[in-house]
Amino acid sequence: VRELTIEGKSGPSAILVGESIENLSEHIKAERTVIVTDENVWDLHGSVFPDGDVIRIGTGESVKNLETVQTVYDELLARGVDRSAFIVGIGGGIVCDITGFVASTYMRGLRFGFVSSTLLAQVDASVGGKNGVNFRGFKNMVGVFNQPEFVICDIDLLKTLPGEEALCGLAEVVKHALIADAGMFAYLEEECEKARRLDPAVTERLVYDSIAIKSDTVNRDEKEAGERRKLNFGHTIGHAIEKTTGAPHGEAVGAGMGAAVGLSVRRGSLEQHKADRIAALIRRLQLPMQLPGDREGIVDALQKDKKREGDRIHFVLLRDIGDAYVAEIPIEEIEDLVRSDP
Amino acid sequence: VRELTIEGKSGPSAILVGESIENLSEHIKAERTVIVTDENVWDLHGSVFPDGDVIRIGTGESVKNLETVQTVYDELLARGVDRSAFIVGIGGGIVCDITGFVASTYMRGLRFGFVSSTLLAQVDASVGGKNGVNFRGFKNMVGVFNQPEFVICDIDLLKTLPGEEALCGLAEVVKHALIADAGMFAYLEEECEKARRLDPAVTERLVYDSIAIKSDTVNRDEKEAGERRKLNFGHTIGHAIEKTTGAPHGEAVGAGMGAAVGLSVRRGSLEQHKADRIAALIRRLQLPMQLPGDREGIVDALQKDKKREGDRIHFVLLRDIGDAYVAEIPIEEIEDLVRSDP
Repeated sequence: VRELTIEGKSGPSAILVGESIENLSEHIKAERTVIVTDENVWDLHGSVFPDGDVIRIGTGESVKNLETVQTVYDELLARGVDRSAFIVGIGGGIVCDITGFVASTYMRGLRFGFVSSTLLAQVDASVGGKNGVNFRGFKNMVGVFNQPEFVICDIDLLKTLPGEEALCGLAEVVKHALIADAGMFAYLEEECEKARRLDPAVTERLVYDSIAIKSDTVNRDEKEAGERRKLNFGHTIGHAIEKTTGAPHGEAVGAGMGAAVGLSVRRGSLEQHKADRIAALIRRLQLPMQLPGDREGIVDALQKDKKREGDRIHFVLLRDIGDAYVAEIPIEEIEDLVRSDP
Repeated sequence: VRELTIEGKSGPSAILVGESIENLSEHIKAERTVIVTDENVWDLHGSVFPDGDVIRIGTGESVKNLETVQTVYDELLARGVDRSAFIVGIGGGIVCDITGFVASTYMRGLRFGFVSSTLLAQVDASVGGKNGVNFRGFKNMVGVFNQPEFVICDIDLLKTLPGEEALCGLAEVVKHALIADAGMFAYLEEECEKARRLDPAVTERLVYDSIAIKSDTVNRDEKEAGERRKLNFGHTIGHAIEKTTGAPHGEAVGAGMGAAVGLSVRRGSLEQHKADRIAALIRRLQLPMQLPGDREGIVDALQKDKKREGDRIHFVLLRDIGDAYVAEIPIEEIEDLVRSDP
């Protein structure tokens, strides 16, 4: 087990890479534990959950909303859960997002932690203290910043992960390498096949390196005033794609990264041969590079992006593989990029 | 204008006692301001609001719920409000509670401040960083801790306050004196009539002294692990009364303080003649001292109190006028007190 720490304003958060879900109860110091999970995770891993209440929610992005949050509040109320309880979310990003938001707002906040069961949650969603749900179809429109006390990243849980879910996580792994770690990018090129198959040893290293980059970034800028914005690389357009086409997060971010690489070249900050190297890796991982068809839909979604400030948007570009920067760009320039992308 | 500061984890909060709503815009450093208020406050004071978007909500405890929160989210979305905006709640406790919760959760948090238009909000609700709404009839069951950047307590706004609303605020003023300031209690005894009429000079002093006690307490214990619990004096039973009978907050807290004084005497920590002096002041302020009829209803509500921890509850008692302490008491003892109160 290797441990990384995020120093949130609300307290430290310990990320435990390689820890097993079977040791979960050792990390909870509370009289009562309440677990929130989804039907799939319950079926696959429920047998190794520690004793305690289990609240199950549905699966898929469509349950990530305030209605589900309220059904969890109802369950907590019905079971008489009070402030002394500890809440654990066991699942992917959706379970962790809902659990984090519920735990941050039920009775004005209970202690909580996560066991991440997907690659995407391990390298991204459950690390960093962002909790939230969608509202009226807009992603993560309602939420808070609040750190879990711990996040267990059990690599063994990934054995049951469907291929498409693995791709989602790999897109974030590539993102971390691109914005901050050229060595990790080279390792990805080298171990591309094993990474795609989620070979345990390769995966554990990639998870650890990803979280190291994310936690370092979050420690420097918890609430996304500057440095943390780099983690949005590929996500401004990626989110707009997700909203418009319903594409899986990994595919959308892959295409979003492709567009951001294109803009970096167009603006003269990234050399073409490096862009080609990035495109080659993204393709070998079987992530899409191209924007999907409905360009005006994407433009419309961009205009409602919550990171917009007035007519401009903070957009993440590359100077090199492993070196990102944030530019304030007129939304129009992004719109042109989306409209003109081949 | 006299200023007090609360040092919240989320940043400092400036409480401005005696500041005028007409100077509101001087305290906002943002390109865009969005005001949240209610219909009554809009009718009475809308003419002195600064320019900007105004979102109006209904009035009364029944609007303090997640449905209203969602209508405010909708308004913010419809007006294209992004993270660069500053949200101001202008009104009483309900407006400030909803505004604070919305501002803390919309896009994972925007900057916000309050103008408190009722005595209760000035001395209590809008000071201290608690935001939240009721859920399934339980008070403040969903919320967060988050400090507004400023709270303007404009004494002139209280001129239009109905008598019953004034009583609500006075109950909290008495509470502050009882838990922390014997001199303030003596001043209240002396100026009882003027306090009841909300004479501006007397009120301004009482507001300032109340906030000084509350901010000092909150500074030592923002998240209510210990010291802050003293601010719940009279409120454990008071909230149960509100829930059961629908009595106004001031009346419920008056009766709750009466019961807590009674228990303090019964447990031998408070002398009877001091209890009599407290009862006399509460009566002169025309707040009720007796518990209302439905005792089993109150007991039932107590069992769902969110401050409960297992079979015990942190209950605030008096050692003297101006000197409170917190005891962990079996819920059964509180239930007996409620059942046996004359």
